[in-house]
Amino acid sequence: MSIQFDNVTVLKKGNVYFDGKCVSHTVLFADGTKKTLGVILPSTLNFGTASPEIMEIVSGSCRIRLKGEEAWNTYGAGTQFSVPGNSSFDIEVTETVDYVCHYG
Amino acid sequence: MSIQFDNVTVLKKGNVYFDGKCVSHTVLFADGTKKTLGVILPSTLNFGTASPEIMEIVSGSCRIRLKGEEAWNTYGAGTQFSVPGNSSFDIEVTETVDYVCHYG
Repeated sequence: MSIQFDNVTVLKKGNVYFDGKCVSHTVLFADGTKKTLGVILPSTLNFGTASPEIMEIVSGSCRIRLKGEEAWNTYGAGTQFSVPGNSSFDIEVTETVDYVCHYG
Repeated sequence: MSIQFDNVTVLKKGNVYFDGKCVSHTVLFADGTKKTLGVILPSTLNFGTASPEIMEIVSGSCRIRLKGEEAWNTYGAGTQFSVPGNSSFDIEVTETVDYVCHYG
């Protein structure tokens, strides 16, 4: 997994969610797509999705439960999970997570 | 003031300081220079500097006191202040700050 994105545009203003438990910055690609790079501090949160998302875990560790499922699955550095659009997921961050969110 | 940086490299892993009161992402430029884009939540913190820094306030509001000074000065969106190397500054964030840190 690459540690960086090259030849991109990054927005100076960040995005703050859940009183700062999640902070991200937006990255724009030449092909018109967008990703966000973020940090989630240890906490248990529920994120909603508009479009489908792929969450790539860069570092840290978390447990994820997708909407409508009972099982929690654990994700660490180098792993990823997919979330449908117009849905949500619970995340329990056990070790501060760095992530890349890819929008489908 | 531009709202973005174009044609840059951004590192996927963020930087977390003060238990998450400050979260930043690192941006690398073609000329070899580096900046960080960050968010500071409402709090009063002391930041140390290694190299000289220019702190550009993108949004929000804060009060700053440089090391060795008694006066606090207020900075808001579109303003900036300079900090010498091997020094420090106190920052009181009254409204969540988005910043760009330029290293000298």
